[in-house]
Amino acid sequence: MMATLKLRRVAIDTYRENVAFLHRDCETYRSEGFQALSKIEIYRDENREKNGVPVIAVLNVVDDAAITQPGELGLSEQVYAQLALPEGTPVCVAQAAPPVSLKAVLRKIAGERLVFEEYMGITRDIVENRYSRIEMAAFLVSCSQNGLEREEVLSLARAMVETGDRLDWGEPLVVDKHSIGGIPGNRTSLLVAPIVAAHGMLIPKTSSRAITSPAGTADTMEVLANVDLDPGRLHDIVQQQRGCLAWGGTARLAPVDDILISVERPLSMDSPGQLVASILSKKVAAGVTHLLVDIPLGPTAKVRSQAAALQLRKLFEYVGDRMGLHLEVMITDGKQPIGRGVGPVLEVRDVMQVLNNDSEAPRPLREKALRLAGRILEFDPDVRGGQGYIIARDILDSGRALAKMQGIIQAQGKNQTRQLPGRLQFQVAAPEAGMVSAIDNFQIAHIARLAGAPIDKGAGVDLHKRCGDRVGQDEPLYTIHAEFPANFTFAREAAEIDNGFQI
Amino acid sequence: MMATLKLRRVAIDTYRENVAFLHRDCETYRSEGFQALSKIEIYRDENREKNGVPVIAVLNVVDDAAITQPGELGLSEQVYAQLALPEGTPVCVAQAAPPVSLKAVLRKIAGERLVFEEYMGITRDIVENRYSRIEMAAFLVSCSQNGLEREEVLSLARAMVETGDRLDWGEPLVVDKHSIGGIPGNRTSLLVAPIVAAHGMLIPKTSSRAITSPAGTADTMEVLANVDLDPGRLHDIVQQQRGCLAWGGTARLAPVDDILISVERPLSMDSPGQLVASILSKKVAAGVTHLLVDIPLGPTAKVRSQAAALQLRKLFEYVGDRMGLHLEVMITDGKQPIGRGVGPVLEVRDVMQVLNNDSEAPRPLREKALRLAGRILEFDPDVRGGQGYIIARDILDSGRALAKMQGIIQAQGKNQTRQLPGRLQFQVAAPEAGMVSAIDNFQIAHIARLAGAPIDKGAGVDLHKRCGDRVGQDEPLYTIHAEFPANFTFAREAAEIDNGFQI
Repeated sequence: MMATLKLRRVAIDTYRENVAFLHRDCETYRSEGFQALSKIEIYRDENREKNGVPVIAVLNVVDDAAITQPGELGLSEQVYAQLALPEGTPVCVAQAAPPVSLKAVLRKIAGERLVFEEYMGITRDIVENRYSRIEMAAFLVSCSQNGLEREEVLSLARAMVETGDRLDWGEPLVVDKHSIGGIPGNRTSLLVAPIVAAHGMLIPKTSSRAITSPAGTADTMEVLANVDLDPGRLHDIVQQQRGCLAWGGTARLAPVDDILISVERPLSMDSPGQLVASILSKKVAAGVTHLLVDIPLGPTAKVRSQAAALQLRKLFEYVGDRMGLHLEVMITDGKQPIGRGVGPVLEVRDVMQVLNNDSEAPRPLREKALRLAGRILEFDPDVRGGQGYIIARDILDSGRALAKMQGIIQAQGKNQTRQLPGRLQFQVAAPEAGMVSAIDNFQIAHIARLAGAPIDKGAGVDLHKRCGDRVGQDEPLYTIHAEFPANFTFAREAAEIDNGFQI
Repeated sequence: MMATLKLRRVAIDTYRENVAFLHRDCETYRSEGFQALSKIEIYRDENREKNGVPVIAVLNVVDDAAITQPGELGLSEQVYAQLALPEGTPVCVAQAAPPVSLKAVLRKIAGERLVFEEYMGITRDIVENRYSRIEMAAFLVSCSQNGLEREEVLSLARAMVETGDRLDWGEPLVVDKHSIGGIPGNRTSLLVAPIVAAHGMLIPKTSSRAITSPAGTADTMEVLANVDLDPGRLHDIVQQQRGCLAWGGTARLAPVDDILISVERPLSMDSPGQLVASILSKKVAAGVTHLLVDIPLGPTAKVRSQAAALQLRKLFEYVGDRMGLHLEVMITDGKQPIGRGVGPVLEVRDVMQVLNNDSEAPRPLREKALRLAGRILEFDPDVRGGQGYIIARDILDSGRALAKMQGIIQAQGKNQTRQLPGRLQFQVAAPEAGMVSAIDNFQIAHIARLAGAPIDKGAGVDLHKRCGDRVGQDEPLYTIHAEFPANFTFAREAAEIDNGFQI
């Protein structure tokens, strides 16, 4: 005998965690001895043998029959969708054992190494929603703490690819670039993609939204165009334009990564092994053959020493080579923000100035984009070594990059609402005269996030000074933009405590 | 301007995590740019300056106005109780920054040592419900993985005591015993407490329910008497009886521990530092002055080598000494279960047989209880070294221990419903004749839990053979008891795969 209950949809979005609800007075809850937070198996049938694999959910107890009555099984939106049965359908529940792969996680916590089959078990259980958020957090921390051996990073990356879909572009040369992040205003992808595509190379750029930064490539592109494209449409656009700038979340590429990110984000966690596995699994799943990785190095960047940068480069190379990627790494200057704007709308302004060859365009952003695009162009066997930069510059200066960008925007669907920098503005001024000796990437990013970026597109920080610039007393260092008063106050307060500039 | 919303109770018990609900179409959700799983601050007042410390909750998004309407702020039961305001009260919400102490957790994940002030920050934030379950899991894993230095264990234990209440019994000698667990049927507390109390020593035994085992002292005592006593009543009982056997969860003793256990349980995690901090903080908060710690050692016990047992003993001694406890450690034989029964009702049967001096009583349970009680009696300055065991035996043989147990049961409130071993029974038989060479504690505990222990009081395993016993082919090794068919099937299936006996 297993308990039979009537299905009920509970319209709560429990975000990446399957949650089921039972009324405290429900006989099933009392008699089967379920506990809060324990996991249950939901079978599509009264006979658990018949209908194969059950859906797993974490149990919450309800005291209000308006949410779930005794005799009903309430399901949060994501579980309800997975089960795909109408309300009222009788289903059967039982206590669930912890996912089998959790034993491997506990061994990882104890400091052991895991092999490919174990990472496959973990990623499969995560994709099939068998992990609670607690279990996912345990897995992430266990990977980040003792660190993963490079062989483990490879196993994890492979397992992440295996548990999702793979795109195939049918061409031998599919390029991409990826920056490991941590530098505000580092919006080079929106320049590199049109330059490279204008040359005719295939660059189907899919990217994530920001995890801990004030703007991701997808968040920023969204100011200009629709980035939420289904796989079929993405394919057509790439065929037609030779490139795109889309959000990677709609295709099921390394879906474990997206799920883990939902837990990483509240923890602000980022470990080298997780980073490399996350980036390379996404790229391999997206059908990329040639990848340029940008590792910014600086005292307030993610990577803070030459030794650490080299170590990370080797890890990328080790894993990339074994996954069949042609991978190159550039270690770049990460001592300060690249563009002027930090936050989606402000970064779009910078990008468009560069594409328009505007005299106001931020030079460092232009230069970095050209260097990266140049290296990618040299993946083309017909481009002579050392000529990439010049070709990239020609494409940009001639306006062909701008035209290509406009083509991509039209193809993806232009965003008709014109978005402006946040209407609440505050100028942060230099407390004394002198020369700017350092800018704290982390603090600038922090202030931009407090101001509301990337969710409020117009929010962020607009920098007026760079390292080496002279400033007078009370001269503005940057302007904070926000849409909403609460955010505005938080950002201003943070800047008052530490404005991020050393003078 | 911060968003003002009307309070609404959502009768969902989110168990140790504060959860708030906003409707997807609520203007606050849209305009303030909240994200699912992000945390919000709830102020009791429209002016956030006025009413001090906000309550923190994790945000869930709702699509059903019957749960939370646009313009309302839904609160799960525990947050609603914390806020203690009637429904409809206007409150004010804002985005919450991560708890300040999370930075220390991230440093711990990176392998650094933390100091007392940092552990204070973490425990205070946890007690004040500022941590999500994800964050708690990250803290637990970070502590268990690289391990805590012994100084850190001390800091954590002290911080756990500081963030709760402390009992004061007004006597110089308040004794207790604690077993680190892992051995099924190790129900010595139910014997030690009445023996020691009958001698006149003060033994206010508060214990937890089972975390990962098939029965805790509180779960087992609950078969006989009420264990859920408020602090005032507990005090009266202890004054009158010189002892008690109560659940420690009602007093606010080291409350962080209870919260962390709610996350540890689904992870089945247990690390030495966490273990020592958890046990000693509870004991110090409970006003214990003299503590005997039982560390069972055996190939399938929690501690599996003499070296590990010594290491753990030293950790107990180091932390105990510095917290002002008189602490002694006994390393005991943990190679097999102690009593015959595994599971609350079956263990109570064993305990009562010993107290009744029944000829059927399991000898190993009697012997172990006498040894432990003897050591505790020697904490009494008037007891000559080496005489404790004899005194304990006299108390037990004379029936004074039984009388004391009955006194304690009456005082706590006798459980009138007589509970029997689970009605579904299955005998696991020896597949071949021979001698029992080993019994796997872990597997026996696992089978007992699958059978429904400790939640179904009558569920568990009743052992018929011990190590060294001769068995014939098909002779019963043990009987599985369960209350419910699903559990019964799970337990039988597990025993068929591995019955836990080596012959």
